[in-house]
Amino acid sequence: MPIPRKPRIVIIGCGFGGLEAARALHAADVDITLVDRTNHHLFQPLLYQVATAGLSAPAIAAPVRHLFRRQRNVTTLLGEAASVDAAGRRVRLTDGSELPYDHLVVAAGATHSYFGRDDWAPLAPGLKTLADAFEIRRRVLLAFEAAEKEEDPEAREAWLTFVVIGAGPTGVEMAGTLAEIARRTLPGEFRRIDPARARILLVEGGPRVLQAMPESLSASAQKQLERLGVEVAVAARVVAIDAHGLQVQPPGDATPYRIASRCVIWAAGVAASPLGRQLADATGAPADRAGRVLVEPDLSLPGHPEVSVIGDLAAAHSHLPGHEPRPVPGVSPAAKQMGRTAAGNILLRIAGRPTQPFRYRDYGNLATIGRNSAVVDLWTPWRRIRFSGWFAWVFWLFAHIYFLIGFRNRLVVLIDWASAYWSEQRYARVVTGIDPRATDN
Amino acid sequence: MPIPRKPRIVIIGCGFGGLEAARALHAADVDITLVDRTNHHLFQPLLYQVATAGLSAPAIAAPVRHLFRRQRNVTTLLGEAASVDAAGRRVRLTDGSELPYDHLVVAAGATHSYFGRDDWAPLAPGLKTLADAFEIRRRVLLAFEAAEKEEDPEAREAWLTFVVIGAGPTGVEMAGTLAEIARRTLPGEFRRIDPARARILLVEGGPRVLQAMPESLSASAQKQLERLGVEVAVAARVVAIDAHGLQVQPPGDATPYRIASRCVIWAAGVAASPLGRQLADATGAPADRAGRVLVEPDLSLPGHPEVSVIGDLAAAHSHLPGHEPRPVPGVSPAAKQMGRTAAGNILLRIAGRPTQPFRYRDYGNLATIGRNSAVVDLWTPWRRIRFSGWFAWVFWLFAHIYFLIGFRNRLVVLIDWASAYWSEQRYARVVTGIDPRATDN
Repeated sequence: MPIPRKPRIVIIGCGFGGLEAARALHAADVDITLVDRTNHHLFQPLLYQVATAGLSAPAIAAPVRHLFRRQRNVTTLLGEAASVDAAGRRVRLTDGSELPYDHLVVAAGATHSYFGRDDWAPLAPGLKTLADAFEIRRRVLLAFEAAEKEEDPEAREAWLTFVVIGAGPTGVEMAGTLAEIARRTLPGEFRRIDPARARILLVEGGPRVLQAMPESLSASAQKQLERLGVEVAVAARVVAIDAHGLQVQPPGDATPYRIASRCVIWAAGVAASPLGRQLADATGAPADRAGRVLVEPDLSLPGHPEVSVIGDLAAAHSHLPGHEPRPVPGVSPAAKQMGRTAAGNILLRIAGRPTQPFRYRDYGNLATIGRNSAVVDLWTPWRRIRFSGWFAWVFWLFAHIYFLIGFRNRLVVLIDWASAYWSEQRYARVVTGIDPRATDN
Repeated sequence: MPIPRKPRIVIIGCGFGGLEAARALHAADVDITLVDRTNHHLFQPLLYQVATAGLSAPAIAAPVRHLFRRQRNVTTLLGEAASVDAAGRRVRLTDGSELPYDHLVVAAGATHSYFGRDDWAPLAPGLKTLADAFEIRRRVLLAFEAAEKEEDPEAREAWLTFVVIGAGPTGVEMAGTLAEIARRTLPGEFRRIDPARARILLVEGGPRVLQAMPESLSASAQKQLERLGVEVAVAARVVAIDAHGLQVQPPGDATPYRIASRCVIWAAGVAASPLGRQLADATGAPADRAGRVLVEPDLSLPGHPEVSVIGDLAAAHSHLPGHEPRPVPGVSPAAKQMGRTAAGNILLRIAGRPTQPFRYRDYGNLATIGRNSAVVDLWTPWRRIRFSGWFAWVFWLFAHIYFLIGFRNRLVVLIDWASAYWSEQRYARVVTGIDPRATDN
């Protein structure tokens, strides 16, 4: 009789979903292989702080290998999944190697989407990875440097105009923080320009900022942004971007207008990892317009109960008893909860028992705008609470520090923030490449 | 009568020398322009810690602009000096602009030298800038990742062999820290390889490690390195490097031998910035083999009293009364002292008084090898003190933290070190590009 082999579980991606799935299997007698194309788990909610020179990269990135050093059933591999062979039950990596599996969790996440205008990518970088954050940091800081050297007033103004496209949480955080850098951090450091006169524009195609929030909080967020000196344009569609600015279509039939800017940041669109489309094409499973896989109630790939798709890659629904199924939002708590459900369902399948449908527990929503400014929409077991301003900011701060992975990071982030709060300084103002005109590296 | 113009002082470079020169002029009624090709002052003695994932970049890099925000006679410019027109008294930048001056301080520093083998640069990166440090960090961490994936035992061994070329302070620090990473930080995190079995080799062409130190301390340093598991080869010349290893010529007529290694680090040669050669060629001033300008006793360029050359770019002598002139070593205290002398001489020249010769005050020499290991050679006013081991390490630690520019950095570095000391972890283990075979980016 052959020795029974331990079930082989492959997890693709070590974001919030993949990390949580692997952790939830810590006590299982299985062989887990965790594949990620970077060597770190990234605390993405604070990535905008790296992009705006408030935090260093290591403060929000924990080595995956280190996180799982004591969980002996996990093998970490640095590698990028190219495709899943669902029929043959194996994952192909870009380096040509293959990983066979009995159970697969696909948590490859999302990337930016330029809505078919991929030529905009080098002109308006998005913010998903540490490399993205460094690029944005470089462009922002070097724009002020270029302005200090520029003799022509019009060209100088274009260097001092910063445009953020998209007013979701990331866009709002970026715009608010840019305003703080211009008005609070940099004044006094330049001799020829006044950084406080920089323009920060936030351009949103939809009717209001933070559309996932209730209307009252959207209104409050916009007011807080404007108090920081951000010019907010809603219902304004970007129709063209070039190296010297962009073209905006205001609501209705109004004439498009041009904004001259040398620093444009993309925070508008999100698309699922190409792996979603590949999975759908290969198995006949449905995918939505953003390339997300429409999964079964238990998060499995239709026709493939041994494959779970979770996080931003899944178009999932929450199945609370007595309620209609509700779409799950693309936020980190949802990804973590899906990771736990996927792990639990693998254990149920190994035990020969039926799987459980996914139930999303929504704790609410929060977004920060800048120093002392935030909005919070909280679902408690008793009632819904909404608040904004300083107390919301403190709540946001502690919530984020609490969820940061790894104690050391938490402590250092707290110190960085405390010192940034009192000094209004941002200490991570380091760039390595200095040519502000290079938009392609 | 025309309004008298303030003297215009241009300082090229914001390393230890340029920074100190600008600071020493804080009370002078002059216009200072400080040009650097990066936006930060780098605390180079700790750069190896960034390369070995012990510190984040912002911990050892302070924005130049921020350092001089309150010194109103300083204008900071991001730019690279292409050449000095000593006859026309102007500096040309690579972007085509020109900076006229009445007094010039050239403190452009040094870079690596591959002794005429510039083709080795992509094969064995050196450590002078933050970009260099990131590249070395990337190669070291990804070599362990590649080893974990490698099936062939011989190829795996090459990934786990690290070679440092050159046993000056940087080479010794790098080799010692690499040994610690392999033996202390990484064990337990891999499932297929044992990082503790990695080989760390330190190859030195001269007769001993740390040649600037007395022989007894060199011997102690070598013993401490070997205790950490570093294999030290002295009087061994590197004669060839390729993508899979290097060829070493042992002393005498012995046959050269090959070391298979996928991670080679260059810490052997230093050459002055090309600006030194350009200055010498343009003015007829003498330069030495490393491209350093042979300056007058008051650090001025021969024939050009209005130009001072300081730091690693100057071949300077110390002129202590009653002593023969002594060559000044290329260390940061010397650069700082030259910066102060150059600034003082500018003020003397403005006042119409004779300049002062440079006098180097040598406080001694120190180098660290790893956790608890260092050597110290101290010149006190009373006697010379030499010691090594744990106490030398603590001395080294506090000396370096004390000299770190900016309080916040000091505090964060101290916390990072304290936590690294107790946990034996290195928290900055973040790489962005993941292809370990790419040697050219």
